[in-house]
Amino acid sequence: MNRRLIARVVGLILGIEAICMAPSFIIALCTDGPDVRAFAGSIALCGGLSYFLIKLRQDSRRLQPRDGFVAVALCWIVLSLFGALPYYIYGFSYVDGVFETVSGFTTTGATIVAAPSALPRGLQFWRALTQWMGGMGVLVMVLALLPSLGEGSVNLMKAESPGPISSKLRPKTSETAKSLYFIYIALTLAETVCLCASGMPLFDGLTTSFTTISTGGFSVRDASIAYYQSELINWIIVFFMFLSAVNFGALFQMQRGEWKEALRSEEFLTYTGITVGAVALVSADLILRAGKGVYESVSQSAFQVVTLMTTTGYCTVDFDLWPHFAKAVLLLVMFVGGCAGSTAGGVKVSRVVILFKGLKRELRRILHTREVRPLTLEGARVGEDTVTSVSVFFFAYVVILCLCAAVVSLEGLDLTTSLSAALTTISNVGPGFSLIGPTCNFAFLNPLSKVVLSFTMLLGRLEIMPLLVLLFPSVWKK
Amino acid sequence: MNRRLIARVVGLILGIEAICMAPSFIIALCTDGPDVRAFAGSIALCGGLSYFLIKLRQDSRRLQPRDGFVAVALCWIVLSLFGALPYYIYGFSYVDGVFETVSGFTTTGATIVAAPSALPRGLQFWRALTQWMGGMGVLVMVLALLPSLGEGSVNLMKAESPGPISSKLRPKTSETAKSLYFIYIALTLAETVCLCASGMPLFDGLTTSFTTISTGGFSVRDASIAYYQSELINWIIVFFMFLSAVNFGALFQMQRGEWKEALRSEEFLTYTGITVGAVALVSADLILRAGKGVYESVSQSAFQVVTLMTTTGYCTVDFDLWPHFAKAVLLLVMFVGGCAGSTAGGVKVSRVVILFKGLKRELRRILHTREVRPLTLEGARVGEDTVTSVSVFFFAYVVILCLCAAVVSLEGLDLTTSLSAALTTISNVGPGFSLIGPTCNFAFLNPLSKVVLSFTMLLGRLEIMPLLVLLFPSVWKK
Repeated sequence: MNRRLIARVVGLILGIEAICMAPSFIIALCTDGPDVRAFAGSIALCGGLSYFLIKLRQDSRRLQPRDGFVAVALCWIVLSLFGALPYYIYGFSYVDGVFETVSGFTTTGATIVAAPSALPRGLQFWRALTQWMGGMGVLVMVLALLPSLGEGSVNLMKAESPGPISSKLRPKTSETAKSLYFIYIALTLAETVCLCASGMPLFDGLTTSFTTISTGGFSVRDASIAYYQSELINWIIVFFMFLSAVNFGALFQMQRGEWKEALRSEEFLTYTGITVGAVALVSADLILRAGKGVYESVSQSAFQVVTLMTTTGYCTVDFDLWPHFAKAVLLLVMFVGGCAGSTAGGVKVSRVVILFKGLKRELRRILHTREVRPLTLEGARVGEDTVTSVSVFFFAYVVILCLCAAVVSLEGLDLTTSLSAALTTISNVGPGFSLIGPTCNFAFLNPLSKVVLSFTMLLGRLEIMPLLVLLFPSVWKK
Repeated sequence: MNRRLIARVVGLILGIEAICMAPSFIIALCTDGPDVRAFAGSIALCGGLSYFLIKLRQDSRRLQPRDGFVAVALCWIVLSLFGALPYYIYGFSYVDGVFETVSGFTTTGATIVAAPSALPRGLQFWRALTQWMGGMGVLVMVLALLPSLGEGSVNLMKAESPGPISSKLRPKTSETAKSLYFIYIALTLAETVCLCASGMPLFDGLTTSFTTISTGGFSVRDASIAYYQSELINWIIVFFMFLSAVNFGALFQMQRGEWKEALRSEEFLTYTGITVGAVALVSADLILRAGKGVYESVSQSAFQVVTLMTTTGYCTVDFDLWPHFAKAVLLLVMFVGGCAGSTAGGVKVSRVVILFKGLKRELRRILHTREVRPLTLEGARVGEDTVTSVSVFFFAYVVILCLCAAVVSLEGLDLTTSLSAALTTISNVGPGFSLIGPTCNFAFLNPLSKVVLSFTMLLGRLEIMPLLVLLFPSVWKK
């Protein structure tokens, strides 16, 4: 392991974290809030440690693939532990602070704050900003700003970017990172403008855009999006949530005017198909069983399906009260998640497509023993290595889901609560069902559950492998 | 598709079914029960159709691999549809009859009969016998009795035998089938003797042995095994359930005196390890949370863990009232199931072992990019084809589980009920949780759910693929 180089990357990350705390500090100062001390202390700690780590003697060797994985895993853990400082100094318990921070950086949106509107403005902003930072991947930011890490940096990106196949946006990593950030910022600004034009205050509009485009789901209002009581705002948010869970490669193509290629992409079509299908099923259930009107049903189910499938996790209604079939559909879309190469969590649509194609090929193999065709996705051949990786990933996902639910059930929580807690954290969604439903929060859980769920959120965001490799002793050798 | 040959196999199977109904008919005659007419009619129908199908002009071609899969799938469907006749003629609705028969043949043990003790003796016997027939696989019986199907018959066995790797018991199929039946019958007789010696009436002992050795779980008593109120009987049943979910290849080795090889088998050790671990966890939960005594906890948890892990499904206590962590562990062992090549259901231990090894290899691959070692199981190399098949199987298992639960939830059942209904049927266990818990039954479900759950039981017993290939139009071509 290239320890010095990894320490340097961690140092850079801490520096960025300190810089990102600055706006919250300024807001705290301007509003004369009780969180001034929290941000001053946190910035001093992060900045100091960052300065120390960056000043370490450099190592000339470049970053190896496994170093990339280790660096990413460590960075995310360190970011979460230090990002919790403002909450801790403000008065939260440290475990609660870490839970809220991890939920932020992983863009989950599960919260231990019953009334976010009661938080001081600085902390509200920091809470939304962690999601915006985590959405794109903090390391991608490093790459965009600092191409000096050299060739090996592609290994960092590989480890942090979601999805089975690394996107082929542009040959150079720092170029790619920059164009990703361009789209990300453009979407955020566009949504802020739309929301403010629809009557949202600027602070609400900006923080909501932060948490929409990152598919995070934190809100500064206690009732989440339901607070605004505006159909227009709901539909604007649905539109931007849907867009944020599209593969950024496809968004990049759209930006360059290559609409046909983008819209014809297999993953995009499947993603749209699942969304429309789920909205139809949930609406039908609401109309037939809950006796709601047609427009109300479609509007509510569109919002909830999109917010859960894109793993954002806002609420406009208490879907825990919906009929059981509608809830089952919502659980399924939480499991699937958004497209690869987007800010969304879940298993990812492209993986599900590959798995279904693998199943179809297996059946074909049984029928015609000799014929074994390679799988294709988006017209290109999918290597057997990728097929294996995807299958292994799916297995690991289910195993972690089950184990996490079992540990949470130690608290004496029912199956619906513990299973949906595990699913909502590994898929980075936010709310679950029953005791952690959309009108509830995670504050009542005991510290063990909070730590396990925080770790599960990290596993989900980093797509499991980077954290699991840390268990191998050989990783820690020089 | 070799239609004539498949029709002949189906004819043979129906003939065997008619013959297997004979003991129940005799019992019905002797007890002068109201089910005499039911069995007389069913035997006449099955026998007649069987005679017609067997008399069809023969086709000289041998059975191809895909024919094997189709034949197995069709045989099981036909068996279930005709096996339901005694229930139907006796007075059940046809859907209920099919559910009970499928639950029997697939050795699931989920029942729509609230009070099995109120059934006439002949039907009670038929109910237990369907499980005993289904445990070994009815087609294996055909192979044992009728080697005339020739070389292609190995394709039948491949499709019906559970587990990823076909066992290497003996080179010839009919020989293998015979030695399997030898062990199967020996175990059944041994258990019957033990149970009767412990004070069970002969009829109860024989039917209980039928449903233990097949890991089925039907009982002639309304309270299942709890009726006998005997610790000795409980432990005898635990022992035989445990043994029946061991790979019959290992049992065969034991029978030949090769104890070391059998006990050192990776699958056997993992199976034992999971069982012991689960018993320890559940016992601890019962002692610490439910405040039960140590012996009581160990005894109850040993029975329930073994009965659910081996996918038998008897009850001695209402485990639906146990603490939530204990119930989560029970759900997990239901998911894993017994060993490959046994009568048990579930994903199977050897598949779980292969999947975990695949995960470990994937992590190793990330760390040391160049090195890719083949997987091994029981000292032998596992082909990449098998690894892929196992991964695809796992995916299909989870997908069917989710879809089945979603369809059942259409009835308005809560998540715990619908998920455990789906799991208990695909894993061929029997009881579930909440509304279908150990003291309840499946009678209250609507016909759609019953049909879907019946199909899920068949999917679980035949390990999914043979039924899914029927969806390909090319199968139905000549």
